Amino acid sequence: MRPAIKLVRKWWSYGPKPQKLRIWDPQAVGSGLLPRSSHARGLHQTGDHLQHSNLTYKHSNQVFKDIDIGNTSRRSGFQMRNFGSSTMGSTILRDERFAILEECDIHYFQKVVGERAVINDKDELEAANVDWLGKFKGASQVLLRPRTTKQVIVNLGAMNKILSFDEVSGVLVCEAGCILENLDKYLAEHGFTMPLDLGAKGSCQIGGNVSTNAGGLRFLRYGSLHGNVLGLEVVLPDGTIVDMLGTLRKDNTGYDLKQLFIGGEGTLGVVTKVSLLTPAKLSSVNVAFLACQDYLSCQEVLVLAKKKLGEVLSAFEFLDRSSLDMALDHLEGMRDPLPSAKQKFYLLIETTGSNENHDKEKLDVFLEDAVRTGHVVDGVVAQDNSQSSAFWRIREGIAEALNKAGAVYKYDLSIPVKDLYQLVEEMRAKLGDSAIVIGYGHLGDGNLHLNISAPKYDEKLLLQIEPFVYEWTSQHKGSVSAEHGLGFMKPHAIHYSKTPETVQLMVKMKNLLDPNGILNPYKVLPSIHI
Amino acid sequence: MRPAIKLVRKWWSYGPKPQKLRIWDPQAVGSGLLPRSSHARGLHQTGDHLQHSNLTYKHSNQVFKDIDIGNTSRRSGFQMRNFGSSTMGSTILRDERFAILEECDIHYFQKVVGERAVINDKDELEAANVDWLGKFKGASQVLLRPRTTKQVIVNLGAMNKILSFDEVSGVLVCEAGCILENLDKYLAEHGFTMPLDLGAKGSCQIGGNVSTNAGGLRFLRYGSLHGNVLGLEVVLPDGTIVDMLGTLRKDNTGYDLKQLFIGGEGTLGVVTKVSLLTPAKLSSVNVAFLACQDYLSCQEVLVLAKKKLGEVLSAFEFLDRSSLDMALDHLEGMRDPLPSAKQKFYLLIETTGSNENHDKEKLDVFLEDAVRTGHVVDGVVAQDNSQSSAFWRIREGIAEALNKAGAVYKYDLSIPVKDLYQLVEEMRAKLGDSAIVIGYGHLGDGNLHLNISAPKYDEKLLLQIEPFVYEWTSQHKGSVSAEHGLGFMKPHAIHYSKTPETVQLMVKMKNLLDPNGILNPYKVLPSIHI
Repeated sequence: MRPAIKLVRKWWSYGPKPQKLRIWDPQAVGSGLLPRSSHARGLHQTGDHLQHSNLTYKHSNQVFKDIDIGNTSRRSGFQMRNFGSSTMGSTILRDERFAILEECDIHYFQKVVGERAVINDKDELEAANVDWLGKFKGASQVLLRPRTTKQVIVNLGAMNKILSFDEVSGVLVCEAGCILENLDKYLAEHGFTMPLDLGAKGSCQIGGNVSTNAGGLRFLRYGSLHGNVLGLEVVLPDGTIVDMLGTLRKDNTGYDLKQLFIGGEGTLGVVTKVSLLTPAKLSSVNVAFLACQDYLSCQEVLVLAKKKLGEVLSAFEFLDRSSLDMALDHLEGMRDPLPSAKQKFYLLIETTGSNENHDKEKLDVFLEDAVRTGHVVDGVVAQDNSQSSAFWRIREGIAEALNKAGAVYKYDLSIPVKDLYQLVEEMRAKLGDSAIVIGYGHLGDGNLHLNISAPKYDEKLLLQIEPFVYEWTSQHKGSVSAEHGLGFMKPHAIHYSKTPETVQLMVKMKNLLDPNGILNPYKVLPSIHI
Repeated sequence: MRPAIKLVRKWWSYGPKPQKLRIWDPQAVGSGLLPRSSHARGLHQTGDHLQHSNLTYKHSNQVFKDIDIGNTSRRSGFQMRNFGSSTMGSTILRDERFAILEECDIHYFQKVVGERAVINDKDELEAANVDWLGKFKGASQVLLRPRTTKQVIVNLGAMNKILSFDEVSGVLVCEAGCILENLDKYLAEHGFTMPLDLGAKGSCQIGGNVSTNAGGLRFLRYGSLHGNVLGLEVVLPDGTIVDMLGTLRKDNTGYDLKQLFIGGEGTLGVVTKVSLLTPAKLSSVNVAFLACQDYLSCQEVLVLAKKKLGEVLSAFEFLDRSSLDMALDHLEGMRDPLPSAKQKFYLLIETTGSNENHDKEKLDVFLEDAVRTGHVVDGVVAQDNSQSSAFWRIREGIAEALNKAGAVYKYDLSIPVKDLYQLVEEMRAKLGDSAIVIGYGHLGDGNLHLNISAPKYDEKLLLQIEPFVYEWTSQHKGSVSAEHGLGFMKPHAIHYSKTPETVQLMVKMKNLLDPNGILNPYKVLPSIHI
């Protein structure tokens, strides 16, 4: 998960160093912190800036040529390119409309958020300028840490209060900086749970979860945040605080505008408060780890699980043998749950319900059917929490194992379930011995995590993967980003999953809400800053 | 439920009859049917039209004065007023920007949709010009009945094809004119069911359900259409067909624009195709009819039901004694399910699950607890389908009974559960013997249907009810329209539930998507056509 707002730029590392760093980015958003002209372009007033602007522009084009590796979906002279977890990569030109940070800005910020909340300590800035994967590096010279919505918004870590919880309706209202796991612990004390769960729960913030429309492990059961978020407070780029922080399950008074900010990746407004519906925490949880001989059987088992487990099914994850081997080979303390024979596919199935006996009985009936029909050839049901955790650790550890194995090219795709694994097989045939292709993910949601592991990053290999992977996904009516968002890496790929009319409408929304492009620039939409 | 697009105007019945009727309304939407000028205002070219426009305007102001009954939220010189199911009421001035229907338009329409699809038969027009409650009457002189998205959209009844269904994922794709009940029947054959159900299922269309964000009886279990709709095809007012008809459960490529059209009441675009996630049809259904002595007990039972029934709880409805009496007194074949003693409150609780024994056992444990704690004082569990239906008929029949009883003032409110019934009691104290105040609704969703029954419509009575009911709801952070939408009757009340900043943003959306105001005019937003 990305936090709600993360500044990721590296443009300055090429070209002559500007004498003044123009900075009017997410930091410049919020009440009382408008650009001094209502149009950000009005800030480009000195010959100095214009000259610098031109220089950077020219230079950046050259840089771009150097790293241009061809992509059929490219729609502008600029391109961002990233190679899995490598630090090698891309540059991007700073948006010409942005202002330059001056001493008087610092004083102004101090007046608004207080001296201690204006941070220019080198180490703290260094940390804040790099995203959590270490892929991108920004150049911000100041970090603001507001304590209230009325202040400016960048790092919301200090906005971490739970505002209310209603035990009758299950409605939780909290500030955007609350850590997901903390919320879940708070709810557990009241017999409730968060409708979403993900590996990063110990550090990710609910505001970021909402802004990125996080999916995760409970999606199959509780559905999308578009259904579970009841209200939001959002700060628009012009500083308007839009209070849509309703706590009602039903409210049909006008357009449901909050939806635009769910998955908006912080490009339309900054989410500052969240109201959401939380389900009751159920006491009985069972986990089974099963093996199938082929992908068709995996699908049959999914259909069977929906029928036989019905209302208690809470997760249906799958991994192929290469994924399992990846985890077993590269992580410590891993054990094959089904060591007697290697199979091609594995399923991790979880049930969550209110009555242990009922759930176990349902699981037994389901497993009996699955084995009798031959769709499941081997399997084990966790006998205690420690076994459940061990099964989950395999599934959740694959990403970490891939990072340890070497270079990795990662794709998060939605594909109709019936076609989903075909892409893995075609990719494997295409790449031969040059890389290890693995497929795993949330099968119940049609969400494939396709990963290609190689000894080192290699442009030739990348050219074999892209744009093929996007074209294939597009041809099969899939999505090139299921749950991770487009962010900085994939705006150029939006056309593979969205029609030109739809993208055009998104651009109109962006221009309507953020005409100066100051919110989380260079993200989601292609070419908007050109 | 309102159909997706319904033309409701009566302006022409006052003032001098215009020589030419300007008509450029929902009918004028769609590919190839743009106004001849890109701005509808460009159509006002002759002195004739301008003169007429002024005349109408003046006259309408006078009419308005006659019926002005005072409302604190009024923001313009115009007002719509409606009295329950009475036909007495309001007028509205025709939007000056709209064009006048001419012979050449008819010919053009015939060319686009074919002669048989251009209807000007008087009886058919009469039927199409009146809404289903008979509250409003329009003045359209022509009805178009398109057969494809590329044609213009008004009555989508002929667009009723199921386009695809995937038995693995449960994803259904269909045209907007499909009748809800037909879809449910189709799905039942495949072991699935629609995630929504409502009394009007035999006649309402899925496009209208989506456009009004219909709630209904399965909301508690399957949640809102914002979570269940996976994709839409929408025709914008400028004729652009926006294909957002994805079939994926997860797709984070850009803003989730389809959400704007869910509950947009046809004012931003016309929904022509729908893709939605359908749950497996579960075999076991139980219905219990319980009595409580006070409202606090009802709340306690709701909390208990969430804990003990957990994943099988599928409906939690409530009605007060006056509601039950209303149904018993005015509908034929009704019987009090708990005749031994009259209680103040009744609950209808339904479970739906995959295993009959499990569900019955859960229900037994729940009921035992509810009775032991004294929260439930009487109750009966339906022994067969016919008893279940009888219980449901009471709950669903209240609206019909109210209509038979006389004049009725209807309010569909979302209010935090703990405060919900207080409004009914305050209203009762306020009105005394002048009217019967009843409260019922979807308690599990915090949705109160407040109804005030009187021998006849009376402005004095109305002034006692409004704006009190809206102010009270607003003070308790409720919504003045939970599931019915704002439509034609309540745009003036939007401010009770939405902040000025939010309404302003809605107006911006409307202006962005429908700058000429040709889509479903006079609905949702206040004053937009002034």
